[in-house]
Order: sequence, then structure tokens, then C-alpha cells
Amino acid sequence: MGSHTLMGLAASPGIVVGRCWPVDRKRVRAPRRRVTVEEVPAEIARFKAALEASDRQLAEVREKVEQLEGAEHTAIIDTHRLMLKDEMLVDEAQRLIREDQINAEWAVKRAIRKIKAAFSELADDYFKERRADVEYVGERIIKNLTGEAAEVPEPPPEGAVIVARDLSPADTALLLHERKVAAFVTDLGTKTSHTAIVARALDVPAVVGVGRLSALADRGDWIVVDGQRGVVVLNPSPGERSDYEAARERWLTQERELMATSQLPATTTDGVRVELDGNIEFAEEVKSLLAHGGEGVGLYRTEFLYMGRSDLPTEEEHYRTYRQILEQLAPRPVTIRTFDLGGDKLPLGVRTHDDNPALGLRAVRYCLRHPDMFRTQLRGMLRASVHGHLRIMFPMVSGVNELRAAKRFLGEAREELRREGVETRLPPVGIMVELPSAAIIADRLARECDFFSIGTNDLIQYTMAIDRQNKDVAYLYRPLHLAVLRTLKLVCDAGRQAGIPVSMCGEMAGEPLFVLVLLGLGMTELSMNGGSIPLVKRIVRQASAADGQRLVGRLLELTAADEIEREVRSEMGLRFPGLLDDMAVGPVAG
Amino acid sequence: MGSHTLMGLAASPGIVVGRCWPVDRKRVRAPRRRVTVEEVPAEIARFKAALEASDRQLAEVREKVEQLEGAEHTAIIDTHRLMLKDEMLVDEAQRLIREDQINAEWAVKRAIRKIKAAFSELADDYFKERRADVEYVGERIIKNLTGEAAEVPEPPPEGAVIVARDLSPADTALLLHERKVAAFVTDLGTKTSHTAIVARALDVPAVVGVGRLSALADRGDWIVVDGQRGVVVLNPSPGERSDYEAARERWLTQERELMATSQLPATTTDGVRVELDGNIEFAEEVKSLLAHGGEGVGLYRTEFLYMGRSDLPTEEEHYRTYRQILEQLAPRPVTIRTFDLGGDKLPLGVRTHDDNPALGLRAVRYCLRHPDMFRTQLRGMLRASVHGHLRIMFPMVSGVNELRAAKRFLGEAREELRREGVETRLPPVGIMVELPSAAIIADRLARECDFFSIGTNDLIQYTMAIDRQNKDVAYLYRPLHLAVLRTLKLVCDAGRQAGIPVSMCGEMAGEPLFVLVLLGLGMTELSMNGGSIPLVKRIVRQASAADGQRLVGRLLELTAADEIEREVRSEMGLRFPGLLDDMAVGPVAG
Repeated sequence: MGSHTLMGLAASPGIVVGRCWPVDRKRVRAPRRRVTVEEVPAEIARFKAALEASDRQLAEVREKVEQLEGAEHTAIIDTHRLMLKDEMLVDEAQRLIREDQINAEWAVKRAIRKIKAAFSELADDYFKERRADVEYVGERIIKNLTGEAAEVPEPPPEGAVIVARDLSPADTALLLHERKVAAFVTDLGTKTSHTAIVARALDVPAVVGVGRLSALADRGDWIVVDGQRGVVVLNPSPGERSDYEAARERWLTQERELMATSQLPATTTDGVRVELDGNIEFAEEVKSLLAHGGEGVGLYRTEFLYMGRSDLPTEEEHYRTYRQILEQLAPRPVTIRTFDLGGDKLPLGVRTHDDNPALGLRAVRYCLRHPDMFRTQLRGMLRASVHGHLRIMFPMVSGVNELRAAKRFLGEAREELRREGVETRLPPVGIMVELPSAAIIADRLARECDFFSIGTNDLIQYTMAIDRQNKDVAYLYRPLHLAVLRTLKLVCDAGRQAGIPVSMCGEMAGEPLFVLVLLGLGMTELSMNGGSIPLVKRIVRQASAADGQRLVGRLLELTAADEIEREVRSEMGLRFPGLLDDMAVGPVAG
Repeated sequence: MGSHTLMGLAASPGIVVGRCWPVDRKRVRAPRRRVTVEEVPAEIARFKAALEASDRQLAEVREKVEQLEGAEHTAIIDTHRLMLKDEMLVDEAQRLIREDQINAEWAVKRAIRKIKAAFSELADDYFKERRADVEYVGERIIKNLTGEAAEVPEPPPEGAVIVARDLSPADTALLLHERKVAAFVTDLGTKTSHTAIVARALDVPAVVGVGRLSALADRGDWIVVDGQRGVVVLNPSPGERSDYEAARERWLTQERELMATSQLPATTTDGVRVELDGNIEFAEEVKSLLAHGGEGVGLYRTEFLYMGRSDLPTEEEHYRTYRQILEQLAPRPVTIRTFDLGGDKLPLGVRTHDDNPALGLRAVRYCLRHPDMFRTQLRGMLRASVHGHLRIMFPMVSGVNELRAAKRFLGEAREELRREGVETRLPPVGIMVELPSAAIIADRLARECDFFSIGTNDLIQYTMAIDRQNKDVAYLYRPLHLAVLRTLKLVCDAGRQAGIPVSMCGEMAGEPLFVLVLLGLGMTELSMNGGSIPLVKRIVRQASAADGQRLVGRLLELTAADEIEREVRSEMGLRFPGLLDDMAVGPVAG
């Protein structure tokens, strides 16, 4: 069989040449059968038995993972067990059996489809990815119904390349514990799917969204995984193998070199100090972040606390979660973003359908309408504030009214706690600048908050009126569009004039190609995936902020995005010829 | 029975006190029944017979409307007849009968629901409203299946107030022909639904979206319709009746006064001339536009050409449609906007689902990917250009790349026509400024086009990242948000510096409250619903542009939208005390 190259998404960097270990999550077929009224009770009994069996199996898995990896890795399995008790699944499936007179397998399949559809409505990538969890749970129930062995997978050998259609978090957890795998490749998934997050946290190369690889790969087939460029080569020729082995060596050498300077301060040659932070979501990511030279957390997402459950997180859960992350990182700063969720209820609950969820009731807008939920999170944060260096950040702020209202809530929560005798520290309060309206009046907002963090992903999307998830218009996502550059400049200038720090936590911040531009704009903090820090730091340390300013000055004279991109590439190629040799072609091709 | 006040949407101005004439479009109940395999052919035959009967009935209605009103009113009935042949309806219903073994009524119901869902995905209000047409067609088929008489409604007496759950365009056409009705009130609908458009074109007051009125109103009940404020009073007390009769007299007097100056030029007291144009969609609206003193068309929407059909409009259809409107208005300018459609196919065809259609492949983006469709429209426009004063406008332009590409298409189409020996005139080419990115680089875009037209509806939505259709976030739609004001100023300044006219065609342009602000920003053209022109013109003629500039100067010093709104209201109340007495509270309450 000849060599076969597939392009996917670069989910975690590194190059590996190894052997395939396909993880067979073959799609279970749910037999479809109509049942008579008389058969309904028996069918419901079968369904309940399957739920119980699934729960028992997950409890076993949980115990195994806990022994091998410790308690912090069991959360996802607890989530799955909670899903087994979720109303939308349990009640809906029983209703379908009773009312539509269909068998339990079919009913589970349909209930799962409905839950997945509800997840699809959600704006955030994060939730979209959680559909894999729902599917995993549904398949487990159906397997128990059809009597297929709920097999525990054979553990892969050390250094194997895991190939799968998709990996549920439980799959991933079970695969990782004993021996270190070399890489992950999945047919489905995006850069924010669980596989990608785990791979980055563990420094294992990963390529996701490659299409139809799992159907082609057999156990033991040679495979090349280039997590830098998002390329996979199945059955490479001997020549390809040695080319990639060499590339791997170069990459490892470069990594070693980068890691050698990763703990040094990010200071430009002309003395400008930039703080390089990490964007994280799970406590598991802290170790890797610090190893890569992260100086703090510029964006800690809290949506995961609300996911895969039928109730809301308590104040105590908020508190414990934030306290853990603050203590782990103290005295380094941790910027916690209040939840960016939308919809009338939590995802697994019933939810009003929005035609354009990205333009709907989300984030701080949602918080201001749901004071109890908001207050619970704020109280949890404030109580945790004494355990480290907390910064609080509000997402999707459109103007001063929302900022003032959110700050009022924070002040009230603090006053409540004071009256209850609970000690808190007043954290710096900032906003995500991710709406055009916020950028345009950044000068006024800067007077009323302590820092800005530019969320380029959303800011670019709203400025250009595109949904980047929509492949048809993704080509309009241009971080170097003149409108974007001018907007960034507006925000940076406003921050500087008001004397507050301006950070960037969108993907643009971790892209080596943009470092000089961002320095030139006067950005004082950049927050990115931990793995991106060493290269960005290296470039910062070799760059001059004055050069950056001159570059930005030239860019603002140009008009078309193509011209601007060409100028940036040419300047970066000139100033950092060595560093950028292996650099991906940038976000335009990503 | 006591008096009952309901709030709805002010769809067409005027006050009427009259008697209800409920138009009973009771929802047909589609009986649901499973059929055996043997019954399937008979069921399909019943379905086909019902299609044919529906088509015959519509043909009769069409003939009647044509006799009474002339050929231009039959288009909507032709559309309905085309829907009866649409694949998504015909094939889908047959498939459902066959595969799901359900009776024809149920199958029609489900097929219609699917088509309506596809319409709901569309970004534009226009398409959302067309769901009423689909429903009308479905109900007609079901009535023919259940054997309910496909009754022709009893014609209402002169001066009746039509009350309905919803009016299909066919209902409206049939109601209007013989005697003039006094007003329309519907439970459903928005300002862009067909009832609203027809009512405005005919100068009949209308309130839509009032909720549950049709269930309460009986034939002959007294009713007050205030199309100015969107208020309806069912069974008014004698006191209320005489209050509203008086209000009606005041309104008629004011209208007469306004109409007396409506044909005069819109020139401010300090000599600034502003062009007041109309936004139209149908040729029927021209008469009313001119009667209200419109000087041309600032926005002619062309989406209707693509609606409710299974094929695409031919170049000849484009040409004839545009020629008609250009000739009707010559020598006045007509600004034709190229189609703002999205999706892989036309609405009735199969369409890829977008999670956020407002941020998807629409308008000029769609055109650039579908060169044949775009070229057909451009050729039709260019051929019509010799018959009047054409201006061409591209929607959703995000930057210079798109503008250049669209202009290239236009140039090529003109060159093609020249080679074919067809005479054309090169029209002025402008863009809708409705994306934040276009506003931010307006200075660069101004160098490459002949005029700007600001689409405030979309511009505000993208700037604030809201979908105004979403009631949960509609409160963030603030035309006087500082970010919006600054954006408008940016665009006006850029236009002035480049020496090109800046128009506004969003709803903001027709709102009396904003006139002084828009003059102060330096807007040279305002385009609105014809009915809004007389009052806006009166204000322009009594206003001073210098006062407007001073007002804008003060507004830009303020920060919160509430403060800015208060300042505008106070200034307008001071300068135009008489004119603004009857003014609605503005867009915030609208």
C-alpha cells in the first residue's frame, strides 16, 4: 500500500514517526423496532437496566483511573455518570418508548440526537465539542442494551500513535495512564476538542480533523504525525520516514533551544518587558504552562464548571476550583473570566433556540439577567481571592452600562461577604475587548476598569461579520486586515493613555508571525497556549519594540490585507530568518 | 365587555376608529393517521388531486384579482402556484407518505414545517416573513384534502378594520380590491411582513404583532387602531372613542399640514440641501413614495426576485423589473442594491445549515462565489441603465478586496454587453456601509467608490454583536450608543473628505428624533419609508445644520447611551416642540 498524506488541524506540536494503534470505537448500530403497547413496560425495564449497567461500568473505570492517575482526572467520568441521570435523556427516552412505541435502543438514539442538537445551538466551540461526550454515553447505553461486551480497550504499547475516529475524554483518560503514547490522530475534532487540550497538556503531538484516516489505518502501520503543520502520512515511504525523522530531530533540537530560554524574562532588545501568560481551562494544564515559561494565566475559562450536569455549580464548588488554581500558581496572576454562556438554561436543560447564538444573550449580558448565577460565581471568586493573585475579567462587554452593572454586582457580593465576616481581597477588574463597540469607545471604558484583554477571535469575527466556524466565510478571518489593525491600535492607545495594561488572549497572541506587530502596537501582555510561549518569548527577546512601531507605522499606510500580510512576512523573514524557517504559514492557511 | 388595550408594532401610520371585520383563517387541523403499505398509492393519488385542486382555485383567485386590480398584483399568487410545484414540498410529502406510512394531510403538514424551518434559518427578515406564504399554501392543500370548502371570503364593508391572526398576501390582495378598508390589525407579523408593506403602500393604518386579538374580536365590535404608536383598543369606552376621534382629527390635520410642504426641497434654514429618498421593494410603492415627496429611491431591494420559485430569475426578468422602476421614477435616481441572499441555493432549494446565518455567506460574499448569478443581475441592471437614473450598490462589503472584485464583475459585464452591441450607461457605484470593518476603513473605501449608504440596522447589530430579532438582546440596539455615533461620524467624515455623498438607509434615517443628529454628522441623503418623509422634511426645513453640528459635538463628550439619548430628546423637544408632540418615544420603545 502506498504512502497516503492527509491534512488536518495542528492540535498539539511535535513530530513523531511511529506505529498506528487504531482505537476501534466502531459506531454501534441501534436496532430499530416498533413495540406494542403491551411490550412498553418490558422495554422501559430494559432501558433502566442498561442505565444501571452503564453506571456500574463507569464506576469501575473511574476507580481504575483514580488509582493510576489520581483524583483530578476522574471529573470527566463523573460527568458521564451524571449524564446517565439527566432528565433530557432519561425522561425523553422513556417518553419515546411509551408514546412512539419504539424499542429502547432506538429511543436512546433519538434522545441523544436531540441533546446533541441542543448542544449544536451553543455559540461556544467548547460546547460543540462536548457532543462527543453525549455520544459516548449514548453508545455505552446502547451497547448494554444490545448485549455487546462493554469491553475495556487493550492498552496500547509505549510509543504507539493512537488513531481513532474520535476520542471521548474517557477513552483518552484510559489510554494515557500506563504507558506514554507518542501521538494522537483523530478523524474528527477541532483545536478545542478534548483530545487537543489533553495532548497539549501532556506535550504529546496531535493532529485532529484529518477526515477518513481511522478506516484506512491498521494496527502496526507506519505513520508520521506532524503536529506542527497538521499533516499525517500513513505508510510513509522509507524516504519520507527518514525525512520526517530528520525533521523530528531538528524540531527536538529547536525545542531544546527554545526551552533553554523559556524561563528567562520576555524583554525586548530595547528594554520593553512583556508578560507572557497562558490560556487554560483545566488545572491539569498548569504544569505544562509553567514548564514552558508562562508567568501567569491570562485567561482562565470557567464554562467547564457548568457543563454536563443538570444542576448549577454551588458557591463552594466555584470557591474550591478557583482556590486550587490560585494556590497552584501563586504568586503569579490568574485572570479568571466570568462564564461566557448563553441561553435560558444550562446546556443540558431546555433552551430557547436563537437564530444567531453568537449575537444572542451570552456572557455578561446573560449574567446581568441571571443575578443569582452571577452572584454565586462572583462570591466563589472573591472568597478564593485571598489564596493567590486573582484578576477578574468580564466577557462581551459592549459599553459602560454593562461594565458598571457588573462592577456593582461585584461590589455587592464583596459587601455581603464582609458582613458575613469573610475576608476577601479586591481584585483588579478588567474586560474582554471583543466587541467592535467596546474597541471604539475603549478610551471611555479604560477610565472605569483596571485592564483590557483583547479577545481577537471574537473581535475579528464581529468586525468582519463572520462566523469563523462557517467554512464559507472563514477566508474573511484576517488578523492583519486594516480594520483589525486600526481597531487594535485604538485599544492599545486608549489603554496606554489611561495607564492600564492591555493584554491579548485571542489566538493572534500566540502566533509568532504577529509578535513584532503586537510589540509595535504597545501590547504589554500576551496570553496563549502554553506550548506557544517559548518561541514567542525567543522572538520577543530578539526583537526591538521600536522596530515594531516602525513596522506598524508602515502597515497603517497600506490598504489591502494581502499587502499588509506580505509586508509582515517580509519583515519577519528578514529579522528572524532562523526562527521562522519552521514556522507554519500562519493563520491564513491554518 | 370592557375596553381592552393591546400593544403591537406600528406598521403603517394613521389613527382609525371603526368596526372589526375578523378574517377567519382558522388553523386547519390536519388529521393524523398511519396508513398501510397497500394504502400508500391511494394516499399519493389524494395528495396529487389536492395539489391540482389548489392550483385551480388559485388560478381563479388570480383571474379575479387581475380583473379588479390589474396585472401587477398577481405576482404573489403566481408565487403560491409555483410553491405547489416545489420539489421540497411535492417530493418530500410523497416520500413521507411512502416511507413513514402516514396520511397525506400529516405528510403535507410535516413537509411544510420543514420548509418553514429552512426559511427560519435565513438571516433576512424578508424571508422569515415569507413563512406565512408557505403556511397559506399548505393550509390550502390540507383544506382540499379534508374536503373543507375552499371558501372565498365575504368581502368586508367599506371602512372596516380587518382583524386577523395573520394575513397571507393572497388574503390581503383579495381584501383590498373592491372597497377601501380602514385599517389592518394582525396578531402576528413584523414591520417587514407583507401586511405592513401593503398597508404603507396604500396609506392604510396598520398595527401588527399585537398578540391575541383575533380570538377576542367579533364582527362589528368597535376598535381603535393607532398605527402611529402601535396601539389597538378593542371595545373602547365612549370616552376613549371620542379621545381617539379627536386624536385622529389632530393627526389628519398634521398630515395635511405636512403634506402641504412635502413636495418642497429639504433645505435647512442655513442652506444645507438634503436629498430625501425612499426604501422600496415593490413597484406598487412608487406612487405613495412620490405622493409623500420622495426625490428618488435610496434603497431598492431585489431579493423578492429570487423568492418563492424553484428556478433563478433570468437576465430578461432582471432587466424588465429594473427598467420598469427606472422609467417610473426617471429622471429621479434609483439606487438598486444587488441581492442580499445567503446559502448554497435559493431559499426553497436545499440549503446548508449555518449556525449563525447573519455571520455567514451572504450578499456580496455570496455573489463573488456565484459569478453566474451575480453576472445575470449585473447585466440586467446595466441593460436597464439607459432607461433612467441608475445607481448600483453592493451590500455587506467588508473591505477593498471585495469592492474591487465586485467592480471587476461589473466592468466585465459592461464590456460583454458592449461587445454584444448593447448600449449601457456607467452608473455610479456605491457600497452599503453596514459592517464595522467597512466603517473603520471608510477613508480607504471612499477612494474606490462613488457613494456610501449606511445601513444602520446591520451596522448597529454587528457593532454591538446582537441579533435584533432576538428579544433577549434587542435592548442593546441603541442608535445613540457612543460607539455608533463615533462610527457614523467616521463614515461621514471619510465621505466628505473624499467628496462622495453619504446616505443612510437604515431605520434610523426615518426617525424624526434623529434628524438633527444626522444633519450634524453631515449626512447628505436620507432614505426611508415613504410615509416618514413629510415629517422628516418638515424638521429638516426648520432645522439648522450648524445646530446639528453643535449638538453632535456635545453628544461626543458624553459617554453612556442614556445620557446621549436624554440630551437628544431635550434638544429636539426645545427646537421642535410642536412637531414632536405626537412623536413616538423613539426606537428604544419601538
